[in-house]
Amino acid sequence: MPLLNEISFPADLRKLQKNQLPQVCDELREFIIEAASHNPGHLGSGLGVIELTVALHYVFNTPYDKIVWDVGHQAYPHKILTGRKERFHTNRKYRGISGFPKMSESEYDAFGTGHSSTSISATLGMAVASALQNETDRQHIAVIGDGSLTGGMSFEALNHAGVERANILVIVNDNGIAIDKNVGGLSKYFTQITSSRTYNSVRNRIWNLLGGNSEYHQKSKNYVRRFFAAIKALLFRRSNFFENIGFRYFGPIDGNDVKILVKTLNDLKAIGGPKVLHIATKKGKGLSQAENDPTQYHAPGKFDYTTGKIKTDSSLEQTPPRFQDVFGLTLVELAEKNPKIVGITPAMLTGSSMSFLQKRFPERTFDVGIAEQHAVTFSAGLAAQSLIPFCNIYSSFMQRALDQVIHDVALQNLPVIFCLDRAGLVGEDGATHHGAFDLAQFRCIPNVIIASPLNEIDLRNLMFTAQNSKQPFVIRYPRGKGTIADWKKPMKAIEIGKGVCLKQGENTAIVSIGAIGQNALKAADILEKTGQKISVYDMRFLVPLDENLLHEIFKTHERVITLEDGVIDGGLGSAVMEFAVKNNYHIPVERLGIPRRFVEQGTIEELQAECGFDVDSICKKIGAR
Amino acid sequence: MPLLNEISFPADLRKLQKNQLPQVCDELREFIIEAASHNPGHLGSGLGVIELTVALHYVFNTPYDKIVWDVGHQAYPHKILTGRKERFHTNRKYRGISGFPKMSESEYDAFGTGHSSTSISATLGMAVASALQNETDRQHIAVIGDGSLTGGMSFEALNHAGVERANILVIVNDNGIAIDKNVGGLSKYFTQITSSRTYNSVRNRIWNLLGGNSEYHQKSKNYVRRFFAAIKALLFRRSNFFENIGFRYFGPIDGNDVKILVKTLNDLKAIGGPKVLHIATKKGKGLSQAENDPTQYHAPGKFDYTTGKIKTDSSLEQTPPRFQDVFGLTLVELAEKNPKIVGITPAMLTGSSMSFLQKRFPERTFDVGIAEQHAVTFSAGLAAQSLIPFCNIYSSFMQRALDQVIHDVALQNLPVIFCLDRAGLVGEDGATHHGAFDLAQFRCIPNVIIASPLNEIDLRNLMFTAQNSKQPFVIRYPRGKGTIADWKKPMKAIEIGKGVCLKQGENTAIVSIGAIGQNALKAADILEKTGQKISVYDMRFLVPLDENLLHEIFKTHERVITLEDGVIDGGLGSAVMEFAVKNNYHIPVERLGIPRRFVEQGTIEELQAECGFDVDSICKKIGAR
Repeated sequence: MPLLNEISFPADLRKLQKNQLPQVCDELREFIIEAASHNPGHLGSGLGVIELTVALHYVFNTPYDKIVWDVGHQAYPHKILTGRKERFHTNRKYRGISGFPKMSESEYDAFGTGHSSTSISATLGMAVASALQNETDRQHIAVIGDGSLTGGMSFEALNHAGVERANILVIVNDNGIAIDKNVGGLSKYFTQITSSRTYNSVRNRIWNLLGGNSEYHQKSKNYVRRFFAAIKALLFRRSNFFENIGFRYFGPIDGNDVKILVKTLNDLKAIGGPKVLHIATKKGKGLSQAENDPTQYHAPGKFDYTTGKIKTDSSLEQTPPRFQDVFGLTLVELAEKNPKIVGITPAMLTGSSMSFLQKRFPERTFDVGIAEQHAVTFSAGLAAQSLIPFCNIYSSFMQRALDQVIHDVALQNLPVIFCLDRAGLVGEDGATHHGAFDLAQFRCIPNVIIASPLNEIDLRNLMFTAQNSKQPFVIRYPRGKGTIADWKKPMKAIEIGKGVCLKQGENTAIVSIGAIGQNALKAADILEKTGQKISVYDMRFLVPLDENLLHEIFKTHERVITLEDGVIDGGLGSAVMEFAVKNNYHIPVERLGIPRRFVEQGTIEELQAECGFDVDSICKKIGAR
Repeated sequence: MPLLNEISFPADLRKLQKNQLPQVCDELREFIIEAASHNPGHLGSGLGVIELTVALHYVFNTPYDKIVWDVGHQAYPHKILTGRKERFHTNRKYRGISGFPKMSESEYDAFGTGHSSTSISATLGMAVASALQNETDRQHIAVIGDGSLTGGMSFEALNHAGVERANILVIVNDNGIAIDKNVGGLSKYFTQITSSRTYNSVRNRIWNLLGGNSEYHQKSKNYVRRFFAAIKALLFRRSNFFENIGFRYFGPIDGNDVKILVKTLNDLKAIGGPKVLHIATKKGKGLSQAENDPTQYHAPGKFDYTTGKIKTDSSLEQTPPRFQDVFGLTLVELAEKNPKIVGITPAMLTGSSMSFLQKRFPERTFDVGIAEQHAVTFSAGLAAQSLIPFCNIYSSFMQRALDQVIHDVALQNLPVIFCLDRAGLVGEDGATHHGAFDLAQFRCIPNVIIASPLNEIDLRNLMFTAQNSKQPFVIRYPRGKGTIADWKKPMKAIEIGKGVCLKQGENTAIVSIGAIGQNALKAADILEKTGQKISVYDMRFLVPLDENLLHEIFKTHERVITLEDGVIDGGLGSAVMEFAVKNNYHIPVERLGIPRRFVEQGTIEELQAECGFDVDSICKKIGAR
């Protein structure tokens, strides 16, 4: 890689001739495909924006100029060009570099972005700050996919930016796909404008008149205003979504053509105020399998670098399934028997395995796009008309819709079933994606049942139970595999608010909730071999809390250790401590869980060890009494 | 009121002739102005939609047909026409009717709405449910102001609705003002389309071609589609925001003309799929003062029925100020000395008194519209570029932006200062507006300082302190008046994480946070008269918690009572209980605060009594040991 080898930072890139940039892109693409083939991560998004990344760092004066990458998994090429090429093999690994932009990692990462739709707000903030501080030469660029654009806060930010005079360029990376195929009216609109020939020809004429004329901005403002108005009136009869709300709109242009990008971005540099550049790119560009199956290749895991084929581990076939698949397949089973059941997810169709329901009952499955707030209140509307909505949202994204849970669901006591996937530590996605806060933040909301399954069978039974609930019902479960290969058993109802004793011992009791209880069971087995018999209880429900069981536990043990895959303050451990104080129990209670600090990426095992609740830490905790 | 007297339910209204409706509107207007003049509530919004309300209930078959009123304070006329005329004098009172639509109050209230921008999501949910359950004759109508439309979830819902075939009518009530003047590109856009004569004439031609032709829907779908396409191509060169994303757009029409409304709504009944009807209304219509000063008359308090003049109580002039004014005036003081300070609020400019800053430093004040998520991340962007953002959001609305606090502010440890106004019980606005959850839901977020002032001077000093913070800083304070008339003292820094002893006693200690500590002090004074000396401590900070002070308290008392104006589970009381268990203190700890259930409306005193933490309840609690 003769060119890429010489590039450590954007300054190196800027030394090259414009006609060398296509080769840089080729080399960068090869580098990323090779790296991702054996170190799994997000692939498709990065491949689609290679030309854009090269063009941006070539044209703009980063890090003085600010680039914010919406949903940072598109930022791999950016990371490689900004000082992290040598460390890229540590991407998403424990103590390695993050899979998302991260301010503390590099001055080139202007803003951290793990959740979507934040870039325009953050960039606008920076642009306004520059204006107030008279740094008028600074450029501020948000790169946002058409998928992220459906998130409501993008619109809030566009609406605000349209009336600020701040210098902001929003690059809409339109590839028609986020992870699953994009949905919604806006997505259709993009397809329509991108494919309209008449539109393009009008656009080109405007483009030539404006962008082509580099002297225009020296003319008086008044003249420019009249000039624009005249063009609008004469040529541009068709108004545009972005122009409606105060942006100047340019494009669409080919976002995989680095030369066109460089020229366009250079032209746009000279134009102040809020601007949108609409580019069309191909997700997974350069790897034919990824181009043809962008959902699968969004984050494909390991694959063969030469053939592009995804590697599957045949030894895994008889192992326990992922909780996700248990959720998806069980939902189909339930929906087959109960016609009132519907499924809702904000753009997590494949990830949550609600895709099974979509295949079986497409008319009863609603992928509403990246729109958590809407997903929750839409579910409330469905429930208000007596349907039974299973709304699946990853735990960390559910943070986006807490007000809707409180205000639209819980207050009205509507029986929406929230399935919080990816609850607890999620591993390689890191700090932005751990589902750490749900237990603590949901516990204080009235009317809501909060449950978490120990294993696949419990998940099925909780879903079976929840369909008859008369109030909101939360089921939180972790990312990844469970423990029971033969999980497809007939379902039965679970008593609400009742915990279970998993293992009867003496002296010390572990009181846990959810699948993390498996760590307690393993620790108990290990300790038993050394002659120490401890008890393990699975509360199953954080709310309502099984106080009868807790009385039994506190009366028959000398020490209680609580265990939860969630932040310690406010969750199960706090609830058990409150119980102990209220009831005047004076035995020690210790809490294991995620500490109140942000946990970075790594394998789940590494992170559990760091937080002190992997099997080994639990054994030590109990032994070290 | 000859007509209104005969109307208890919409069925009575439907017996009238169309030409009697203007008189119904006049009587309804008089009724509301009279009622609101002595029982304060939201005035302007309701007056603006009287004609719309009458027309909707006249044309549609409520409650079978569903009407969802976005931000329900526009629903007074609706309440009066749907069985609650006789009880309307109890509006917003303790055990009276709610100031917002409420499902449990009436079958005509299809969905509860206290926070804005939820109506389209909920209505779409109902429409989809009707379609799935073959109730194809049911109509589903969301009435939303142009202010609420800027909330991101409205856009999420529009985007989704644009691709569902569900039968939904979104009525955009465009009055150019929410509480303060609306902001943002969309608002400008409305002004532009409403005032465009060319646009209107094109619109009218389409209107006549479509709405006027009641037989059109019987023609084959294919024909209709071509017909539409042809019209679009030939006449409608100018595309429209809503049509861009899949809606059919009708209007704008005069929303204060009941006859036009009836005709239009009747026409629209026959048209399936997602539709927008754009109506222009006058906020405060019929009361000239309210028309001229819609911000002041949004919720004017008591006023003179005949003159419209707002009543002021001159006896209040020398009393302590509202916390809101202390915030607003102090922010100006700080901003005068520190040029890096900026103010951000999502449409709470007047309510939060950030209007003082806007008057003094308009270029450093950002009212971003109803857009909490954007407000938070925009503030993060400002902080990332070294400005000092004071972001003021009412506590209950902050629930809308918790993910942005976690992901964009706390994770990146950006020093944004969040001023959570209206924290704790807010009184007459009721269940949707109490700031009950902030302490519990913020406590688990890493890196965030959480403080709450006992009085006006503490609020000033906390703001003074926060401007130098290197991490996120939350200051939560209640609605209404403080206790110190002479509050404008020189400011000084407060030590972070340090509580104070307000009153040294013995045996029992009340440990409180925030202005609710005043109740503890009053209780202590009362008890002292009976010979019982209790201690009162103000923790000031929930995070970091002053563990040194807690050790002192637990070592020198026999009983601790925690007091907070927030939900009990997860807040200060829980933190103190956790401290007690961790440190093996075995004295009783009892928690006073908002219980984990929704609290309805009433005066703050009534509600504190109901929740058991008014002065009297505290005395009883301590006496009843």
